[in-house]
Amino acid sequence: MKKLTHDGSKAAAHSIMTTDKVIKEIAVSFEIGGKQCHMGGIAKGSGMINPNMATMLCFITTDVNIETAILQKALDADILDTFNQISIDGDTSTNDTVAILANGMAGNDIIKDEGEDYRQFCEALRVVSSNICKGIAADGEGATKLLECFVTGAPDKFTARKVSKTVIRSELVKTAIFGQDANWGRILCAVGYSDADFSVENVDIMLASEEEEEVVCEHSVARTFDEERAKRILSKTNVKVYVNLNQGAESAVAYGCDLTYDYVRINGRYRT
Amino acid sequence: MKKLTHDGSKAAAHSIMTTDKVIKEIAVSFEIGGKQCHMGGIAKGSGMINPNMATMLCFITTDVNIETAILQKALDADILDTFNQISIDGDTSTNDTVAILANGMAGNDIIKDEGEDYRQFCEALRVVSSNICKGIAADGEGATKLLECFVTGAPDKFTARKVSKTVIRSELVKTAIFGQDANWGRILCAVGYSDADFSVENVDIMLASEEEEEVVCEHSVARTFDEERAKRILSKTNVKVYVNLNQGAESAVAYGCDLTYDYVRINGRYRT
Repeated sequence: MKKLTHDGSKAAAHSIMTTDKVIKEIAVSFEIGGKQCHMGGIAKGSGMINPNMATMLCFITTDVNIETAILQKALDADILDTFNQISIDGDTSTNDTVAILANGMAGNDIIKDEGEDYRQFCEALRVVSSNICKGIAADGEGATKLLECFVTGAPDKFTARKVSKTVIRSELVKTAIFGQDANWGRILCAVGYSDADFSVENVDIMLASEEEEEVVCEHSVARTFDEERAKRILSKTNVKVYVNLNQGAESAVAYGCDLTYDYVRINGRYRT
Repeated sequence: MKKLTHDGSKAAAHSIMTTDKVIKEIAVSFEIGGKQCHMGGIAKGSGMINPNMATMLCFITTDVNIETAILQKALDADILDTFNQISIDGDTSTNDTVAILANGMAGNDIIKDEGEDYRQFCEALRVVSSNICKGIAADGEGATKLLECFVTGAPDKFTARKVSKTVIRSELVKTAIFGQDANWGRILCAVGYSDADFSVENVDIMLASEEEEEVVCEHSVARTFDEERAKRILSKTNVKVYVNLNQGAESAVAYGCDLTYDYVRINGRYRT
């Protein structure tokens, strides 16, 4: 048995990989009550990913001093907007896990209610968890692109989460993104069948990369857009779809990937 | 404009095709109240198919004499177990249609309640609709196989429908069927995450073709099975998955297809 080492996290992250192609890890530092705190996370998962707290593993550690019940509350709240908003193939596994461990070594006054310290802790947690979620989605089986769908203007949180997740789960959207085809009709269609309760009359859709953006649909109708720019955006490895429902103040993000020949190849040959 | 002809149905069925590779049509004859009755159906649809009465068109005609309200009731009831149980890609379209027209020319006493004549009418309708559903699923974009999932032993109809549809929608099940891999774990997993309320402790799973069958899972646990036979079954163009939940008397069927390289190719290149 090896001793604990400073770079043990990388070894641990490596040891849990299965069909993963890249290690997922992140660490952040932040201040709570004047004390320097730290948080790190490692995860694995690449197929059968549509967590409903089920073949994904994620371990988050922190030195923050925090009561167990409050720690669980922070994690439960975070998961709704992060891990449960990932989908690689829509297949929920029987054994996803996100575990968080806090040893209190930072020496901050123990967090035991949902005050300012809790808020800061949740913010740090969100940086760690959303980073890991992007890592998992980007490394989806066969994926060539990370697909993020940002929904804004939703009447409630449930609708925002549901619409964003429905878009990134759509096989037609995922193949269009793979094919670098700005097929906004498929996006609008997925928005419409998402089974949440809202009006589809006034939806704006924008495609974006890190460098540029292009509005492809306004008020739920076609608009002339720059096909060349849209194609450039879709040629990147990180494609963002912005959907504004224009009927409220709630928002959510969901994390997915494109559907490719390689997904079919990997999963058509898995067991045999 | 052409005149009505006896073989006009085939021309009509052909005229509504888009990415379809085969015509979907069927006609049956049956007796109601001593009168010879007829019913025919044509349909089109190959992608964006996960009807929730939304890119599928189906037209059924019959000469049965039946009141409009009762005809609508028969169609509404039938759709729950037929068209709404199809899924090619999980993408619900905005414009699926199933229309039924009855002109009363068979001369039977008009059907105006849910008696024996109604029962016989519904039976004929089911033969037509389920045949068309199989035709649509088998001709799914890129599909090489029709996948039918029969769920029995369910506590209620909702559960039976939900479980069967979840299995045929699973990307992991669909790629395994494409790869001719008897990966029953993926089937059981989809059964488990189907979001219906039942126990997953005692599930039997059997694979079957027209010629032979093989039980691959009993009481929710692995069992030694004939891999060669399973592979022969999965090499056929019509693969049936039987799932017995062993906790009730309700049953349902769902109609899907395998997920293939060609689905990705077709939909990665659709618009451009």
